[in-house]
Amino acid sequence: MIAYKGDILYAPTPDRFTVIENGYVLVGDDGKVVATGGSLEALLEATSRGDSDGVDVADQSCTTDETDSITIVDRTGSLIIPGFNDLHVHAPQYPQAGLGFDYELLPWLEKYTFPTEAKYADIDIADHWYRRFITHMWQVGTLRFSAFATLHNEATLRLMQLCQESGLKPLIGKVNMDRNSPNYLVEDTDDSLSSTEQLIQQSRKLTPDIGFIITPRFVPSTTPELMVGLGELAQRYDVPVQSHLDENRNEIDWVRELHPDIPTYTEVYEQYGLMPNNRTIMAHCIWLTDRERAILKDHGVWLAHCPQSNMNLTSGIMPVRRNLDYGLKVSIASDIAAGHEPNMNRHIVTAIEASKMKTFETGYEHDRPLSLSEAFHMATKVGGSFFGKVGSFEPGYDFDALVIAEDESLLELSPEERLERFIYAGSSRDIAERYVSGRLIDKPFA
Amino acid sequence: MIAYKGDILYAPTPDRFTVIENGYVLVGDDGKVVATGGSLEALLEATSRGDSDGVDVADQSCTTDETDSITIVDRTGSLIIPGFNDLHVHAPQYPQAGLGFDYELLPWLEKYTFPTEAKYADIDIADHWYRRFITHMWQVGTLRFSAFATLHNEATLRLMQLCQESGLKPLIGKVNMDRNSPNYLVEDTDDSLSSTEQLIQQSRKLTPDIGFIITPRFVPSTTPELMVGLGELAQRYDVPVQSHLDENRNEIDWVRELHPDIPTYTEVYEQYGLMPNNRTIMAHCIWLTDRERAILKDHGVWLAHCPQSNMNLTSGIMPVRRNLDYGLKVSIASDIAAGHEPNMNRHIVTAIEASKMKTFETGYEHDRPLSLSEAFHMATKVGGSFFGKVGSFEPGYDFDALVIAEDESLLELSPEERLERFIYAGSSRDIAERYVSGRLIDKPFA
Repeated sequence: MIAYKGDILYAPTPDRFTVIENGYVLVGDDGKVVATGGSLEALLEATSRGDSDGVDVADQSCTTDETDSITIVDRTGSLIIPGFNDLHVHAPQYPQAGLGFDYELLPWLEKYTFPTEAKYADIDIADHWYRRFITHMWQVGTLRFSAFATLHNEATLRLMQLCQESGLKPLIGKVNMDRNSPNYLVEDTDDSLSSTEQLIQQSRKLTPDIGFIITPRFVPSTTPELMVGLGELAQRYDVPVQSHLDENRNEIDWVRELHPDIPTYTEVYEQYGLMPNNRTIMAHCIWLTDRERAILKDHGVWLAHCPQSNMNLTSGIMPVRRNLDYGLKVSIASDIAAGHEPNMNRHIVTAIEASKMKTFETGYEHDRPLSLSEAFHMATKVGGSFFGKVGSFEPGYDFDALVIAEDESLLELSPEERLERFIYAGSSRDIAERYVSGRLIDKPFA
Repeated sequence: MIAYKGDILYAPTPDRFTVIENGYVLVGDDGKVVATGGSLEALLEATSRGDSDGVDVADQSCTTDETDSITIVDRTGSLIIPGFNDLHVHAPQYPQAGLGFDYELLPWLEKYTFPTEAKYADIDIADHWYRRFITHMWQVGTLRFSAFATLHNEATLRLMQLCQESGLKPLIGKVNMDRNSPNYLVEDTDDSLSSTEQLIQQSRKLTPDIGFIITPRFVPSTTPELMVGLGELAQRYDVPVQSHLDENRNEIDWVRELHPDIPTYTEVYEQYGLMPNNRTIMAHCIWLTDRERAILKDHGVWLAHCPQSNMNLTSGIMPVRRNLDYGLKVSIASDIAAGHEPNMNRHIVTAIEASKMKTFETGYEHDRPLSLSEAFHMATKVGGSFFGKVGSFEPGYDFDALVIAEDESLLELSPEERLERFIYAGSSRDIAERYVSGRLIDKPFA
């Protein structure tokens, strides 16, 4: 077992942080949290071992003693927090980050996104830019994410292999699109289905730590046949599903034109079998009706709230408070490259800022702003829960963690205040170490 | 003369960029732009010299030939853009950046700002943190700014001296506050006035490139006697004025209680002589009435729009489109530390994002979002115009410039797109060089 010593801070519930100043996270050999506490002796007793004689103080070291003893990884003075989990990101769009924000969604896709994604037909380009993408996610402390790739099988498998090599544990989906797409970036329906099935099978052999996720681009670019086929694959292989929902008002009108017999955008996915219970992520969900909220809640769908993207593409502001009050699961996501930066700390900030702006539209009583602990909880534990027990330091959770070695301070700060400073004004340079399932992860690629 | 060669990009008007790909900015020995153009010969002819024989190609060098010849500083492949100008920043608050944003303005001041500013009574603390502040401003390419210091004369003079040493050319104001302030951070009215006058005189001798600006904190913390005295100093010494206006609705109510006989917050400053024509900056101006707009326009006041700060402290969203349509001068500012980062590229982004969010509140016809060129114009030329001919590359403007050496790109990008990418996703690491009035400025402090 390893005991990580430092100022421990996590958010098991949205309403407040759990803080253990100068405390410990005890992690088992399986990389899962055994317990947290302020006294190592008490921790060991509580975990029914009581063998604190074996305590082995290995200052600044990470080696695990092979015996029954405890290795202490001493990070006194640093914050130890859960890693970030980003439930919506487009890996191939990474090189277009920061382009085209005088446009809204549909023209932006035509002008920047489709030409960028088309280039991933070239495996060398894909390899180069996917390495840069993964390294950047590592730098900013996003240890798990759910990514759209492109429609290209070879490039998507390469992304999964590079992720496997990196030690990060994302979900990756090959994008499916067989209608209303440019002729240089569109699939035949049957080919789309068979190549998806092939990738599921290949990745199970080749990339055991990287899950596959079924990824229809969005309703306008997938035919009913394709949606039905993908739903069947999701069921047959027990894999999750991700897509986009209710992002832009023109997009919603388009879906209504394409499916005039289905009452809402949400129900298109539902009817075609693309909303497996407790296995689905829907990005954006800005313009939900209450009817749609009920369906999303019923299926246990994760909403990936992408406030930076929604501002950039003038899509709208999600009424996050009302969705939370309704009992929906709302995580925070970067949506690279409609979001222009991967840093989840800044997306926490933007989610808070967007919730404050919403307050000015509708009043405090309808849209009370998010607090820091709520937004942090969304970016760690809510997003993490899509991967299992991830995003907290409660017993049984994977030890996915960041060690934050902060800058000097003029004021004396509490751990919560130090976290707030890192979230708002810190950078990846403040992240000293990253652990995934208890394993220290080095910089993946040069 | 020096000819800077590269992809020249600036925004003399809000509606579009002026772009000269692979062109030149010709700069005189006085550090002012002589002309810009695509051909050096044509430029020289146009400037009535015609002596292109003397052209001296000094690749990657910055030395100026002492003769009549032209030195070419070759930055081919890089963008050359005007430096950023930030009309509202609190230099001493730099170390508190990122703290306290679950609070609104007035409790945030009490809990974080006043305790921070009080520490600048210690000159060693002031020296340490002011060096860090100036270096950070240099890093992010903010070459001119208008800063609030604290009420302490010694620390404020030190800030001015460090700025003089750095080569940056800001305006600095000692803060005045003689009421409704904590007992550890409040002045006697006469002392406040005499120490302000003393600083004006000292700085004229000691820091010739750093202007002094009269800086009453805001109406609630300055008595009428102090305001009147400061207005007289502004007139006597012909120095500009800066303060806060219409930021937070509780603050506005407070001003109304303090001055029940004066119809608006704006008129308090006007009546007490703190709105010298074309010499005044007012920060925030979120909740202006049309009556106040008319007064601000009449006095030629610069509005410092601080969208990040306004989001962080839940102050509101300035209706920037309506203020622009009214003919007001609106610049973009960081408001460190209610804004959490000094980077003006990100404040350009936030101003655009805020304007998009405003659109959702009131509709496109009232609050059309800012375009990139508009926001860039505000952060360069509008802010720069407070300092004279600064913020553009039109003839006669000070050559305040940034050389942006960008990262590789997957897509082929125009200069405007490369600028957009830098604004949204770039960082200070992309800024290769900074020039103020034609002088290359090195990193000020280690």
